[in-house]
Amino acid sequence: MTTPLPDCDLLVRADTIITQDEKRRIISNGAVVIKNDIIADIGTYADMESAYAPIERLDMVGKILMPGLVNAHTHLPMTLLRGVADDLPLMRWLEKHIWPVEHQLTEEMLRIGARIGCAELIRTGCTSFLNGYFKEFTTGDEANQAGLRAVLGEGFFSFPSPMFPTAEDCWKTIRELHSKYSSSQLISTAVTPHAVFTVKPGDLEASYHLAKDLGLQWQIHLAESPEETAICLDKYGKRPVQLLADLDLLSPCTTLHHCVDVTSEEIALLSERQVNVVHNPSSNLKLNSGISPVQEMLDAGVVVGLGTDGASSNNQLNMFREMGLAALIGKVRQNDASAVNAQSVLDMATRGSANCLGMSELGQIAIGSPADLIAFDLSSPNMMPVYNPISHLVYASTGHEVCMTMVGGKILYLYGNYWTMDIKALHYDALRAKEWVVSVAKK
Amino acid sequence: MTTPLPDCDLLVRADTIITQDEKRRIISNGAVVIKNDIIADIGTYADMESAYAPIERLDMVGKILMPGLVNAHTHLPMTLLRGVADDLPLMRWLEKHIWPVEHQLTEEMLRIGARIGCAELIRTGCTSFLNGYFKEFTTGDEANQAGLRAVLGEGFFSFPSPMFPTAEDCWKTIRELHSKYSSSQLISTAVTPHAVFTVKPGDLEASYHLAKDLGLQWQIHLAESPEETAICLDKYGKRPVQLLADLDLLSPCTTLHHCVDVTSEEIALLSERQVNVVHNPSSNLKLNSGISPVQEMLDAGVVVGLGTDGASSNNQLNMFREMGLAALIGKVRQNDASAVNAQSVLDMATRGSANCLGMSELGQIAIGSPADLIAFDLSSPNMMPVYNPISHLVYASTGHEVCMTMVGGKILYLYGNYWTMDIKALHYDALRAKEWVVSVAKK
Repeated sequence: MTTPLPDCDLLVRADTIITQDEKRRIISNGAVVIKNDIIADIGTYADMESAYAPIERLDMVGKILMPGLVNAHTHLPMTLLRGVADDLPLMRWLEKHIWPVEHQLTEEMLRIGARIGCAELIRTGCTSFLNGYFKEFTTGDEANQAGLRAVLGEGFFSFPSPMFPTAEDCWKTIRELHSKYSSSQLISTAVTPHAVFTVKPGDLEASYHLAKDLGLQWQIHLAESPEETAICLDKYGKRPVQLLADLDLLSPCTTLHHCVDVTSEEIALLSERQVNVVHNPSSNLKLNSGISPVQEMLDAGVVVGLGTDGASSNNQLNMFREMGLAALIGKVRQNDASAVNAQSVLDMATRGSANCLGMSELGQIAIGSPADLIAFDLSSPNMMPVYNPISHLVYASTGHEVCMTMVGGKILYLYGNYWTMDIKALHYDALRAKEWVVSVAKK
Repeated sequence: MTTPLPDCDLLVRADTIITQDEKRRIISNGAVVIKNDIIADIGTYADMESAYAPIERLDMVGKILMPGLVNAHTHLPMTLLRGVADDLPLMRWLEKHIWPVEHQLTEEMLRIGARIGCAELIRTGCTSFLNGYFKEFTTGDEANQAGLRAVLGEGFFSFPSPMFPTAEDCWKTIRELHSKYSSSQLISTAVTPHAVFTVKPGDLEASYHLAKDLGLQWQIHLAESPEETAICLDKYGKRPVQLLADLDLLSPCTTLHHCVDVTSEEIALLSERQVNVVHNPSSNLKLNSGISPVQEMLDAGVVVGLGTDGASSNNQLNMFREMGLAALIGKVRQNDASAVNAQSVLDMATRGSANCLGMSELGQIAIGSPADLIAFDLSSPNMMPVYNPISHLVYASTGHEVCMTMVGGKILYLYGNYWTMDIKALHYDALRAKEWVVSVAKK
C-alpha cells in the first residue's frame, strides 16, 4: 500500500523558472507548488509532479515563471494626472498643474486613480508596491479588491495640508490605517514624511519613533536633486543624508526614495546603517533631477530597490520599462558599459525592492514566500531569439509580455483577461475622471 | 441627376488623426482616403465620406491614426545577436562576441535575422527604415516580402572584409542593389561607408561621389563617442565633423548616425550644411557612448531623426521605446526639464527620420504621401486617462499599443494578426538561428 501524496492547492509549471532565490537558481522545465497562498515547494516538474497531488494545475508552456516585480516607490492615484502636463520645470509643473488639482481630489477620484494604477501594475507584472499619497485607505481598499499587495504611506508635512493641520494630526490616521488592515493578508502600512524640506526635524523624529513603535517601515523622499540639497544646506547647514544621520533616523527600517544627489561618503554611511534606497530612473530624468549613482551604491553594499514614482512624472507604472532604463542610464552615470548589469537590475526590482517594503520574503520564488508570481511570454518578435532570459527581461521587454500575474496564489490576470477587475468599466471611469480633472484645473 | 462620387481604394476612419503635416494638425473623428497606395485626401470623416465612394473601409474606432514611424538607423539582421552578450565594454563586446559570429553569417541566417526584425518593426508601428549591414539583398528581399519600406546600406571598410577586398569592390554591389530595386515601390539604396576610423578619406570621397551620381543618400556612423574623436584626432589631426567638412562631404544628402560627441561649433556647421543627424539613445547608453546634445541640435536647426541601432546594442527595434528615451535623457543632457519635449520627439521619429532616409514625403499624413499609417490603441490601462495623445505616444506607450500597421495602403498587421508574415514559422526559424549562433560562437 502506497502512502497518498500530500495535496497542494496549485501546481504551476513553466519551461523556465527564474527563482531569484539566494543562489539565483534558474530551473528548466520546473514547477512551483502552492499551498495556502504560500510557495510550498519548487523544483523540476518531474520531481514536483511525483511528490504532490495538486487540486489545480496551471501550465505556462513556453513561458518564464518568475517572482512578481516589486514597485518600491509610487503614488498610485496620480495616474489621474498622467500626461496632464509634461516637459515643464519642476516648480511650475507642481504649482500650476499638479497641486491645484491634488488639493481638490475627492475620494471617488482617488479611488479611480488607484484603480487605474492597479490595472497597470497587474498588466505589467508588478505584484506589490510601496505607496505614498493621501487618503490612503482609498488605495488600500482598491488594491485589496484588485488582489495586489500594498504598503500604504499616508503622507504628511509640517505645514497645514488639506488633510492635516499639523504633522501630528497624521499619527492618528497612521494608527487607524495600521489597525484597519491589521488582519489583512495584502495591505500594510508605512510611516511617510514627505521630505526634509517640508517636514521639520522634530516631526521627522516623532514619526520615526511612531514607525519603530508600530514595527513599520519609515519612508521619505531624500536627496532627490541638487536643489533639495541646496535648500537643506541653507536651512540646516548640512546635506540631506547627514541631517537624517545626525537625527539618528538611518536604519534598516528606513527607506529613502531617489538618492540622486549623494556623495561617496554618504553612500558609505547608507551602507553602514543598512538603509534601503529606491532608484526611480524615469522620474529622475523627466523632472531633470539627475542620475543616481546606482553602481556606486551597489558596490558599497547599499540595498537598492526600484520604483516608478507617480504616473505624472514617468508617465508609466511599468517596472519592466524601469528595469531597462536603470541598466541603460547606469552605464553612462558610471562611465562603464559593464555597470548596472541585467542581473543587478532584476535583483533591484525583486529582492532589493522587497527590502525597501520591509518585506524581505517577497521578490523571490523560495519555500515559505508568498506565492506572488508572474509568467512572461517569449513569443513576440522582440523576444527572438533567446540566449539569456534575464537579458530579455531587462533589455528587450516592453512589459506587455507578461501573460499571468498572481498574488498569494490567486490569479489576477491571465492571457489578456483580468480576473479581479472590470477593465471596460474602468475605461468609463477614466473618461469621467478626465472630465473632472479638466474642470477643476480651470478653477 | 447627381455626379457619381470619385472612387478610392480605402477609407480609414479614426477617432483622432495625428497628421504630423506642416501645421501638425490633429483631426477629431477624421478619415484618410487612399488611392493607388497614396494618401489622396484627409479630413473629417463626414467630409471624406460625402466626397468619396470607397471600395473598402477600415474603422479604427477609439484609436489614434498616425504616420508610421521611421527608423533612421538600424542593422536589421543583428536581431540574431539580441542579448547574446550585454554589459560589456565596446571593444570586448565587438571582438569577443559580435565579430566572430558576424564573420560566419550565412545568407540563410541573415534572412532569418532580417525577418525577425521586420516582424518587430511591424508590431511596433515602424513602416520604413534605413539599414546598414552586408549582403543587403537579404534584408531587401525580406522587407519587400513583409511589405516594409527599406533603404538598404551595403556597408564597407577600407580594409579587406569578408565581403570586399577593398572599398571600391563594394561600388559594384551598390550599383547592383540600386539596379535590382530600381522599379521597386518599397526598396531603395543608400551608400554606406562604416565610419571615419575604418574608411580612408579617398574612399569616403569616392563613395560620396557615387551617391551623388546615383542620387542616393550617403550615410555614415559619425562622432559616436569620445574614443572615436580621439582616434580621428590622432589619425587626421581633426575631429570627425571637421574631417568630413574639409572633404566637402556635408550636404542634405548626408546622414550622420549618432553625433554624440559634437561641439557647438560643429552643430552650427551641421545646420549650415543642412546635414541629417540620427539620434540613437538606447544604443548610446548601452555602449556607454554618451548622450547626444539633441536639444542644442534642434535649437540650431539641425534635422534630427531617430533610430534604434541594431538589436544587439539596444536590444529592441521599438521606436516608441526610443521616443520615450529620447525625451527623458534629452532633459538631463540639456539640464532642463522642458528640453526635448514630446512633440519634438514625435517630429524626430516621423519627419526628421524621413529626411534622414532622403524621403521627406514620409512621416506625415498629407495628400500625395505614401499611405504608411499606423493605428494606436488607447484601451490598455497605461493609456488612462487621455489628456494629450502626443504625450501618451512618447511617455506612456510600450509600443505594443500599435494595433494596425499599413505600408503603401497595404495592411501588414491588424489586431494581433500579421497579414504578410508567418510568425509561428518565424519562432522555429529563431530557434534554429540560436542553435547556429551558439555553435559558431564556440569555434
